[in-house]
Amino acid sequence: MTASEKHPPQIAELIERLSRLPGLGSKSATRLALYFLGRDEDEVRSLARALMAVKEEISFCSQCHNYTHDDPCPICANPERDRGQICVVETPADLLAIETSGLYRGLYHVLGGVLSPLGGIGPGDLHIDDLVARLEGGALAGEPVREVLLATGSSPEAETTLSYLVDRLRDKGAAVTRLARGLPVGVDLEYVDGGTLRQALEYRRQA
Amino acid sequence: MTASEKHPPQIAELIERLSRLPGLGSKSATRLALYFLGRDEDEVRSLARALMAVKEEISFCSQCHNYTHDDPCPICANPERDRGQICVVETPADLLAIETSGLYRGLYHVLGGVLSPLGGIGPGDLHIDDLVARLEGGALAGEPVREVLLATGSSPEAETTLSYLVDRLRDKGAAVTRLARGLPVGVDLEYVDGGTLRQALEYRRQA
Repeated sequence: MTASEKHPPQIAELIERLSRLPGLGSKSATRLALYFLGRDEDEVRSLARALMAVKEEISFCSQCHNYTHDDPCPICANPERDRGQICVVETPADLLAIETSGLYRGLYHVLGGVLSPLGGIGPGDLHIDDLVARLEGGALAGEPVREVLLATGSSPEAETTLSYLVDRLRDKGAAVTRLARGLPVGVDLEYVDGGTLRQALEYRRQA
Repeated sequence: MTASEKHPPQIAELIERLSRLPGLGSKSATRLALYFLGRDEDEVRSLARALMAVKEEISFCSQCHNYTHDDPCPICANPERDRGQICVVETPADLLAIETSGLYRGLYHVLGGVLSPLGGIGPGDLHIDDLVARLEGGALAGEPVREVLLATGSSPEAETTLSYLVDRLRDKGAAVTRLARGLPVGVDLEYVDGGTLRQALEYRRQA
């Protein structure tokens, strides 16, 4: 029995659309749809409006390519941020993770993904030329970028992207750094996978 | 740092609304909001419309109180359903679980919850008078209800509701039955809780 046989078409349609969202299967989509049916119409309308507002009123920062309402975004426009540091991340979600840590006070640059030859994503599909231009522009404007911190992930594609960026950013006058690899917090060594252990050994330092 | 400090207000608002939904915490709400930002505007608009459609176009069946577009609902209107059986459930989601099993071909009656003295939910807040009226109305119309199957859950409140219903439905000319209690499928006896084991012993029958 499909959703459209069990439910009125309006409910089947909502379940179908909800079940396409990341992290929601057909069971949780059904539960959510029935939840909406039981809520006030005003509450559901507010959610529907909030959904449309993010699409209609949010765009990209022309400098760092993060999502923003104003251009440049509040981080790029903030005079208290260190303009000599650019942290390069794959996605807005990654930027958010670093912002939430409160450990970084420089600027950002969102690539918009990683290189993926199999997925048909080449350097031209990411904001890489823009990153190079920011380094060169900063040098011309007398505000040179001292450091580009490559805060990409540790998937194979991310590692490939990192290597490519290291090549592209060479000789631009800025130090190019990358996040450390090693043991995450709170693990027993016996449960650590071989790749992580190899990295932790390779990156070991004076205790 | 709150969502509104980290995000443009439109995104913070969407995250806040999404995180109120059942089963979504602030992390999954943030992930969903960023997911919507990356999708086509048409796709997000379709979801927003589907949300509103369930509120604007779906109401309750005047007979069984299930959600429906047409009144009476397709189940109540189906001439092939057995009109001599009424299965009483707490919620539309419970009705759906029984429909999906394909094991029942009678009619339904959705109570809209369970009695809860602490939660301030009394008999007048549930569709109980309507259920009694359906039994009396059926008898008058010459289509008597043979059986009322009380398919409520096994929480303490549901058991209280069941006892109350048994009292109210006495002497209405219909057999009043309840779902069996016992072992669920696929458990080892050593892991079964004491309450379930007690019920399984109490409800035992000739093998």
